[in-house]
Amino acid sequence: MEQMSPQAGWERHTQRPLLALAVAFAVAYAVPIVDASAGPSVTAACTAVEWVVWGAFAVDYLVRLALAPQRREFVRRHWLDLCAVVLPVLQPLRLLRLVSTLLLVGRRARMAPQIRLTTYVVGAVIGLLMFGSLAVLSVERESPHGNIRTLGDAVWWSFTTMTTVGYGDHAPTTGLGRIIAVGLMLSGIALLGVVTANIAAWFISRFEKDDVEERRQTEAIAALTEEVRLLRAEVSRLTAERPERR
Amino acid sequence: MEQMSPQAGWERHTQRPLLALAVAFAVAYAVPIVDASAGPSVTAACTAVEWVVWGAFAVDYLVRLALAPQRREFVRRHWLDLCAVVLPVLQPLRLLRLVSTLLLVGRRARMAPQIRLTTYVVGAVIGLLMFGSLAVLSVERESPHGNIRTLGDAVWWSFTTMTTVGYGDHAPTTGLGRIIAVGLMLSGIALLGVVTANIAAWFISRFEKDDVEERRQTEAIAALTEEVRLLRAEVSRLTAERPERR
Amino acid sequence: MEQMSPQAGWERHTQRPLLALAVAFAVAYAVPIVDASAGPSVTAACTAVEWVVWGAFAVDYLVRLALAPQRREFVRRHWLDLCAVVLPVLQPLRLLRLVSTLLLVGRRARMAPQIRLTTYVVGAVIGLLMFGSLAVLSVERESPHGNIRTLGDAVWWSFTTMTTVGYGDHAPTTGLGRIIAVGLMLSGIALLGVVTANIAAWFISRFEKDDVEERRQTEAIAALTEEVRLLRAEVSRLTAERPERR
Amino acid sequence: MEQMSPQAGWERHTQRPLLALAVAFAVAYAVPIVDASAGPSVTAACTAVEWVVWGAFAVDYLVRLALAPQRREFVRRHWLDLCAVVLPVLQPLRLLRLVSTLLLVGRRARMAPQIRLTTYVVGAVIGLLMFGSLAVLSVERESPHGNIRTLGDAVWWSFTTMTTVGYGDHAPTTGLGRIIAVGLMLSGIALLGVVTANIAAWFISRFEKDDVEERRQTEAIAALTEEVRLLRAEVSRLTAERPERR
Repeated sequence: MEQMSPQAGWERHTQRPLLALAVAFAVAYAVPIVDASAGPSVTAACTAVEWVVWGAFAVDYLVRLALAPQRREFVRRHWLDLCAVVLPVLQPLRLLRLVSTLLLVGRRARMAPQIRLTTYVVGAVIGLLMFGSLAVLSVERESPHGNIRTLGDAVWWSFTTMTTVGYGDHAPTTGLGRIIAVGLMLSGIALLGVVTANIAAWFISRFEKDDVEERRQTEAIAALTEEVRLLRAEVSRLTAERPERR
Repeated sequence: MEQMSPQAGWERHTQRPLLALAVAFAVAYAVPIVDASAGPSVTAACTAVEWVVWGAFAVDYLVRLALAPQRREFVRRHWLDLCAVVLPVLQPLRLLRLVSTLLLVGRRARMAPQIRLTTYVVGAVIGLLMFGSLAVLSVERESPHGNIRTLGDAVWWSFTTMTTVGYGDHAPTTGLGRIIAVGLMLSGIALLGVVTANIAAWFISRFEKDDVEERRQTEAIAALTEEVRLLRAEVSRLTAERPERR
Repeated sequence: MEQMSPQAGWERHTQRPLLALAVAFAVAYAVPIVDASAGPSVTAACTAVEWVVWGAFAVDYLVRLALAPQRREFVRRHWLDLCAVVLPVLQPLRLLRLVSTLLLVGRRARMAPQIRLTTYVVGAVIGLLMFGSLAVLSVERESPHGNIRTLGDAVWWSFTTMTTVGYGDHAPTTGLGRIIAVGLMLSGIALLGVVTANIAAWFISRFEKDDVEERRQTEAIAALTEEVRLLRAEVSRLTAERPERR
Repeated sequence: MEQMSPQAGWERHTQRPLLALAVAFAVAYAVPIVDASAGPSVTAACTAVEWVVWGAFAVDYLVRLALAPQRREFVRRHWLDLCAVVLPVLQPLRLLRLVSTLLLVGRRARMAPQIRLTTYVVGAVIGLLMFGSLAVLSVERESPHGNIRTLGDAVWWSFTTMTTVGYGDHAPTTGLGRIIAVGLMLSGIALLGVVTANIAAWFISRFEKDDVEERRQTEAIAALTEEVRLLRAEVSRLTAERPERR
């Protein structure tokens, strides 16, 4: 492996374990919502796991900050991560913990060199669908006029929202639920943008291929090279004749 | 016709008959749903046709696999087709048979050399609209709270879904119906992407045309060629003079 | 004015009057729908105007066909216009007459050299909004369960449809109304596509400007030309020295 | 700072104060709507602020007109601003004043050299969301059948509208409210367009980089240059030999 900066090294080596923790968080977040009859012990365990995962990402952030060449610059560029690290301490809301962790996971995932924008967005969309459904379910189930009561409804609703179809057969009624919905809508627009952009880029790269002007140029250069080669042959004949003239 | 690989040959020759079978499948699938009062004999006949068509595509897959230069590679690249071939055997659900056949038809159609992405997507969209409507109708008609009871409603609903308009005057209420709906939504986003990408590519190819830099290059090369030609003329004069000097 | 083909000449000269007729058609179509209490004489007059305008465009088509260099080719390329000319004769429905005329006007407008795609689409969208509202109103006002009863509702509905927002507070309930709605949805997607494509093309044309590779090429060619010029100078010195040696 | 035209100078120096006034307008517009129990004195003060801000922008327009090199041209290019300046005088409606001021602020902001299209659109979208919510709230709260009664509902509604999700749980019922809604829908489509275009442009600029044709050209040119260099060397040897032959 070629020599790399300590920061890059840390990022590469912590990548896998952090991913595993993210999955653990997903499970720990889902369990108490999906199975509403979960006992207090289960809920407590899940909350613990959530705190641990969030803590791990917080530590990861601090280590990367410590390893960064210019700390100022690093904080300025990752201020959003900083918020995600600090907020849950100030306000230990479950939803806030979710958002913070999702944010940290997402920002971290983008550092993995092998992840391209498309895979990143698709992954983000799936993640948002899953957590959006869970979060909305947990919020709306309590509300008196809520119409999202089962996991099925929640998933269905988040699909209709992210694809901007919006039947309106299910819609959040609480402030929190609506904030989550807005997040889903915006990410849906991003998804649409990436899909379109991908296809467009692919089309255009195809269009580029048969660029007449360029092909004409290449031919012109080839002809020119031939021209010069002939010239050189002639000149070397000129030089060859020399000697025998003595 | 130029010499072609056995695989390509098979693909070209089986193209038309398979297309015909696909149409037969469409009819066989539609009949029992559209005309709800169809007798058991009709239904049985349709089911038979469905199995035959699916079988034909399964055979086509196996033949192509047999003709493939590297089998491993082929399976790896067409694993989705493999599932489509195997699944209906494990789970003889009608909807599953539909999905499998649609998948096989679609993957196969993409091999036809003359089909360009746009035509492919437009075709896929029309097919999805048609089968989406039928599938949802057959699923929702049974459900107690369903609001999609006639073919007209089903077609209207699938249009409002695929264009992401989503009035909500009709919406699936069953799990299966919603899964079909999600398929329509996603293909709708793909459609939108392709439409936009097409227009964008067309625009940009227009923009490209008047690329100043490139024209300047072509001129530069032309000038250079002229330069070299003059040079060669001079050198050959130089050689010509020689003899008379003896 | 430079010499032009008889076809082009006809197209340019008939452009303005045909546009005026299109406006007349719009008024004649709107009046009986907007003012439901219009007397039979008014309605009759409007119908007459509609027939006249449609007739004018039919004649225009036939003249252009007569002036076309290859008639076959012309019919093949304008078969849609041909349908629009023939259909109203076979089926004198008001809606069909509207669609035919809109089609003829649209195809004709696209021939005007000064109209660029964007302006064309924007115009088409506005036209579709206006006629879509009127057509839906005239269709839905009669239906028992219809919820689009005033012109205001119709316009509002067609906006929510074309922008794919689709609140569902108003939605067509009749088959005809829904067919019109599908037309609006599809044109809405086209509109979105053109808007995006325009912005994208504008962005990319900005990106293109600083294409590093190309600039490097131009420099390389310049250097090469210099190289050859030096060479030529040397060779001509070589030739110059000759004579004095006698 | 380099020498600039008086117009550009004025634009740069008035930029900041005008921005501050725009913020003041936002507050003055929001207060009476958000807090419905505001006394007449508060309302009067807010109205005064609104008039002042509008006046400031009107003056700015006139000064820029006075400083413009060709006044005709200036009016022709900024006729929309002119309307925005004149209308509130003819029709002192609050909503009209809002639209006029938003228009003037927007057109003015676009002159700031450092603002790029994306930031401009994002800013416009946020502004439209905020003012759209307020305007709809103030309009719909009065209507008997209105379903947008609280600020929360208004904001939620404008998000569902601008992202074209359109659940339909809230929708404007008055003509004015619907006109505002159309504005939000159209700006939502613009937003989507800019998001997609940005991503697409970014993708394509990446694609461009590895343009095979171009690289081949560069190599061809390099080879050719080498060819010519060799040739030159040979010719100079030819010349060098000369002298010693005496």
